[in-house]
Amino acid sequence: MSESYKPKGKLFVISGPSGAGKSTVIGRLVKQLNNVYFSVSATTREPRRGEREGHDYFFITNSEFEQLIREGKLLEYASYVGHYYGTPSEPVDRKLDEGFDVVLDIETKGAAQVMEKRPDAIGIFLFPGSYEILRQRLMLRSTDSPEAIEKRMEQAHVECSRVEMYKYIIINDRVETAVDEAIAIITAEKCKTSERLHLLK
Amino acid sequence: MSESYKPKGKLFVISGPSGAGKSTVIGRLVKQLNNVYFSVSATTREPRRGEREGHDYFFITNSEFEQLIREGKLLEYASYVGHYYGTPSEPVDRKLDEGFDVVLDIETKGAAQVMEKRPDAIGIFLFPGSYEILRQRLMLRSTDSPEAIEKRMEQAHVECSRVEMYKYIIINDRVETAVDEAIAIITAEKCKTSERLHLLK
Repeated sequence: MSESYKPKGKLFVISGPSGAGKSTVIGRLVKQLNNVYFSVSATTREPRRGEREGHDYFFITNSEFEQLIREGKLLEYASYVGHYYGTPSEPVDRKLDEGFDVVLDIETKGAAQVMEKRPDAIGIFLFPGSYEILRQRLMLRSTDSPEAIEKRMEQAHVECSRVEMYKYIIINDRVETAVDEAIAIITAEKCKTSERLHLLK
Repeated sequence: MSESYKPKGKLFVISGPSGAGKSTVIGRLVKQLNNVYFSVSATTREPRRGEREGHDYFFITNSEFEQLIREGKLLEYASYVGHYYGTPSEPVDRKLDEGFDVVLDIETKGAAQVMEKRPDAIGIFLFPGSYEILRQRLMLRSTDSPEAIEKRMEQAHVECSRVEMYKYIIINDRVETAVDEAIAIITAEKCKTSERLHLLK
């Protein structure tokens, strides 16, 4: 085994209902771990004010997106109010090959597509302390109507009904604990015997 | 689900060659985590100077030990230079029921017995940076003869040949990192979906 041997990174899929605090937790863990790449999605919608190419999204045309679909170069995709959203596999695979761990933030349907294509992907489901806390967060942060909040709550129940395809659950009732647990999961997965057998020498 | 619901603890089995630093790592992790009980073994040998009953070992008689064997009340046992050593299951199960995680420090043969009896036990194998480092540590710390050190090195190879029954490997080339990884493993195992499904409410 050469000195320069660097194992491939691992792929983590983080899901959870809107309002569970995914972006906060992921933002902090990416800052705290220096070996994690947060995957950027591609979309065909127009950039919003302040959004940066390659940072918030890869902004591509409809025909570019459909070519990615045809060529099987998306880990997952969906269309939503007339626009495509998806995860191009090429940047993910490049980072994994370079030894970075890669984190995807996607909803449960996209996560199911990823896990079918990549059975070694590790799913983490983020949930707030309770549905009641989730409702309160949505009411606090959102300018949504009561009806829109009910719709998000229904959607949260749908997302949660798919929790068993995830390997881990993090309850985000205290963000520091949630970040610590996410880091612990990533750290532990890299201690798996299959990852480290080559080090016994 | 009642408010007072407290999940059972998890059982961790830590092994590794003599000189890998098991006691140091376990000592620190027990100090840092307040929910971990370090299991005390039973033995039929005489207490050495400074050893305390129930702290270093449970010191019991030959006939008491053999009664534990007959009644199936040991998670594992072995005899070594005329004395029995083993892990009584009762204190372990009591702590697990109370919700504590329990850590056993045992060599690989005993670990195999535990894992057969408790398939949900989680094995962690601790290894120094390399066999060469192990040899240096043994030479530094020990008053053993060169022959005795060679014997320990042979034994280390035997222990390592059984590494694949462990779920995790920790390379103890820096004790702080090793302790962090051990804590990460315990934390992550408690985030498993099967452990937390009841919290989605």
